[in-house]
Amino acid sequence: MPVVDLNSDLGESFGAWKMGMDEDVMEHISSSNIACGWHAGDAEVMVKTVRAAKRKGVAVGAHPGYPDLLGFGRRDMTCTPNEVYAYTLCQVGALKSVCESEGLELQHVKPHGAMYNQAAKDPKLAAAIARAVKGAGEKIILVGLANSAFETAAAELGVPFAAEAFADRGYMPDGSLVPRGRPGAFVHDPDEAAARMVKLVNEGVVATPDGQILKLKAHSICMHGDNPAAVKMAEAVRATLEKNGVAVKNLREVLRYSELK
Amino acid sequence: MPVVDLNSDLGESFGAWKMGMDEDVMEHISSSNIACGWHAGDAEVMVKTVRAAKRKGVAVGAHPGYPDLLGFGRRDMTCTPNEVYAYTLCQVGALKSVCESEGLELQHVKPHGAMYNQAAKDPKLAAAIARAVKGAGEKIILVGLANSAFETAAAELGVPFAAEAFADRGYMPDGSLVPRGRPGAFVHDPDEAAARMVKLVNEGVVATPDGQILKLKAHSICMHGDNPAAVKMAEAVRATLEKNGVAVKNLREVLRYSELK
Amino acid sequence: MPVVDLNSDLGESFGAWKMGMDEDVMEHISSSNIACGWHAGDAEVMVKTVRAAKRKGVAVGAHPGYPDLLGFGRRDMTCTPNEVYAYTLCQVGALKSVCESEGLELQHVKPHGAMYNQAAKDPKLAAAIARAVKGAGEKIILVGLANSAFETAAAELGVPFAAEAFADRGYMPDGSLVPRGRPGAFVHDPDEAAARMVKLVNEGVVATPDGQILKLKAHSICMHGDNPAAVKMAEAVRATLEKNGVAVKNLREVLRYSELK
Amino acid sequence: MPVVDLNSDLGESFGAWKMGMDEDVMEHISSSNIACGWHAGDAEVMVKTVRAAKRKGVAVGAHPGYPDLLGFGRRDMTCTPNEVYAYTLCQVGALKSVCESEGLELQHVKPHGAMYNQAAKDPKLAAAIARAVKGAGEKIILVGLANSAFETAAAELGVPFAAEAFADRGYMPDGSLVPRGRPGAFVHDPDEAAARMVKLVNEGVVATPDGQILKLKAHSICMHGDNPAAVKMAEAVRATLEKNGVAVKNLREVLRYSELK
Repeated sequence: MPVVDLNSDLGESFGAWKMGMDEDVMEHISSSNIACGWHAGDAEVMVKTVRAAKRKGVAVGAHPGYPDLLGFGRRDMTCTPNEVYAYTLCQVGALKSVCESEGLELQHVKPHGAMYNQAAKDPKLAAAIARAVKGAGEKIILVGLANSAFETAAAELGVPFAAEAFADRGYMPDGSLVPRGRPGAFVHDPDEAAARMVKLVNEGVVATPDGQILKLKAHSICMHGDNPAAVKMAEAVRATLEKNGVAVKNLREVLRYSELK
Repeated sequence: MPVVDLNSDLGESFGAWKMGMDEDVMEHISSSNIACGWHAGDAEVMVKTVRAAKRKGVAVGAHPGYPDLLGFGRRDMTCTPNEVYAYTLCQVGALKSVCESEGLELQHVKPHGAMYNQAAKDPKLAAAIARAVKGAGEKIILVGLANSAFETAAAELGVPFAAEAFADRGYMPDGSLVPRGRPGAFVHDPDEAAARMVKLVNEGVVATPDGQILKLKAHSICMHGDNPAAVKMAEAVRATLEKNGVAVKNLREVLRYSELK
Repeated sequence: MPVVDLNSDLGESFGAWKMGMDEDVMEHISSSNIACGWHAGDAEVMVKTVRAAKRKGVAVGAHPGYPDLLGFGRRDMTCTPNEVYAYTLCQVGALKSVCESEGLELQHVKPHGAMYNQAAKDPKLAAAIARAVKGAGEKIILVGLANSAFETAAAELGVPFAAEAFADRGYMPDGSLVPRGRPGAFVHDPDEAAARMVKLVNEGVVATPDGQILKLKAHSICMHGDNPAAVKMAEAVRATLEKNGVAVKNLREVLRYSELK
Repeated sequence: MPVVDLNSDLGESFGAWKMGMDEDVMEHISSSNIACGWHAGDAEVMVKTVRAAKRKGVAVGAHPGYPDLLGFGRRDMTCTPNEVYAYTLCQVGALKSVCESEGLELQHVKPHGAMYNQAAKDPKLAAAIARAVKGAGEKIILVGLANSAFETAAAELGVPFAAEAFADRGYMPDGSLVPRGRPGAFVHDPDEAAARMVKLVNEGVVATPDGQILKLKAHSICMHGDNPAAVKMAEAVRATLEKNGVAVKNLREVLRYSELK
């Protein structure tokens, strides 16, 4: 039976500021990427979000970002690989201890925002992140774009890797995302997004805006949970996947299935 | 043979700002309390300091503090127990992963500054800290003032506890420190400090400013490393201890010896 | 004709996090207290909020707080008077330049949260704040609790002072607020709150929970704008005041009227 | 008589961390660029540094930087012009109020680190900074690289502009600095640096590493004060300038002289 993981960025509230519909989107996903207090989230939010994930049976991953709370970790910064290594290790370590104190295993690490985007193209940054993930624990999975520097770096260090796809984004023929602002950058219709994801999981392909068929690998599909429409799309994608014979499982299980094939 | 641990607060540099003579004082101590980036230290400093401790054979502990970088964690803040629990857990977790990535065990946790002082007197804060230490790992030792709320909280949760004494501070007949500004608050002479510590370790007593003899327990002696005089005192205390038949061992070993007695 | 100012804390969004219904509540108030980026708000939010206030004809004040973004400036901290002086001066200066760049005058300063509460009772902190307000500009008004340390400190330094009352809070016979959790701490009904404020402005009195009549001075009434119910109460209070012959004017004008009497 | 200003970055201590030999280098300079608490400095340090500058007769400027305390404002960040406008305005405003509370005028603004380097080449960022400087006060001088985007932006908005040269850096034939790591990037010898600066002020030229003669304008020369060798170079440059008939005056006076010519 085909399987796939559904992941979402959670725990992005900070102090008195609330963000995201975490409890709602958790109903529909199998893995959570929890902010670690540097670009979003804070220590108490981390504890509360891990506990909520435990209650809902959602696997927990760390979502480390740049030290840029004001910019939500979305601004490119010229950090050295040693800095990115240390930033990742400390953020992952914090969330790992929160998990362990609740009797959970930290399943994966998915970098956030500008750190994700810069490292996906920069082998040195990707290697720094992979090294930090390995340092934090041998079994922790690194999640990133398929065919990116993440995949190469993980392979070189023997770090388990999972490729993610985006339900609400269009793809270029080379596998990169259609840049924001270009036609086909976003898929807004939940049913269309769901249908695309069924095809992706079952056939390993996705259509590009100009009608080509792109081969794409995806262990996990990234969903959003920051507004009611996003939650509705997550619900639709999951329902359509299951109706079409795709089992939604967390990343650890998806990787196990992949190895069996 | 009597044994004691010597500990010092290290890794307090931040970004472009240097603080402390870490490499020098590491020559004379057996355990380090490494700042975790909230009141001092940063991720890169944490990695570098753990590596230096490994090279020098010094055991590593976490030194969590309040989220008050501007005030160096020295200002009282009215945090809730749940906040202090989460703050401690995240800081300890970060340093624990840095240790594990270097093949080291995180030996202990010693709270810093205002968090230390407030929790020493507040059973709810002390319990929150002990709970976080236990959550981060069953074997991690909590270090604090003898006879303080830390000791009670650790006992209730079954967290290993180590009492620390201060080589350069005077003690009141009730076991509290002579308040800063009062006669006898500080011991400046390295030889006098060393002699007091030998007596403390060998006989379990220390003299108060008014000539009374106070019974005091100390698994560890806190030394400073932020200036040349402090490093010299650390060197003198260690040399005098060893000359008088006291072995300097890290906290893990000291607790093992204590249990054998 | 009796006059009173209506003030509200605004500009409390931070980075990607939104807070408050600023545009809505601005319809009903005459003065705004704008966060300065230390406990809430950020530089861009300050600029946008000052521009919105200008469009709506609402006077602008600075709302400085402790350096505790994580705790929203609500946690007591043991800061020295010199620290509080410098914190206030820098926050007020930042907002003053934002005002001046938009062609507005900075009308007042109202400290936030724990800084407000601690200084209201601590003459040294209140004096430090009054000194900072005076340093930032001779005409800037300090807003605080009537009969508090703020009023004394302002008088001593010749800083214009305005007393504020709270529409949604009950008062003890000694003029302090009924502590949260006690009966009568809050007034939830907009009509009751409005009636109380009419009586306060017209007769200078407010009823205590046990039926006593407390004399109280109020140049300004503090309203909230963080939720729809709060905005509705602000609307009700203003409408009822005006229906009862009270003119709502900003603080500068209210103080001018006070001097004429 | 030829005149020139000597400027230095000061007030870079933060909380418990000391940086720079501010009092020493102030003996040799005429203008100070004081950090505003975002990349370095803090509110109390700002107050203390402005007071020291007042005692020493050194003019005060603001030294705003990116919100990157951990990276000391030296890391490129992709901020929008609106962000840079707001960041600059708030930092300048804070220091301006500190100056005014001490009876001083804020003389100039010189951006720091990555903000300086990015804006020198980016007309939109330079325009944002010039707009903030103008918003903070009509007479405030913007200091930047000669022939950079700063100069153009200042001219377009009618903001007073002053060009600065670097005593310890080599110049390329196009007027840019020799990149770090290339031969001739730094001038270490105080006498050579001093001789170069005399030639620059008196003749408007500086020699490039390959022996060409570059025409260069400089109202101010940037000196460092973070170590004893830097202070010694500042002293040597000033002494040699004065011995060669160049008067050291602050920027306001230097611009006045320039206009008279």
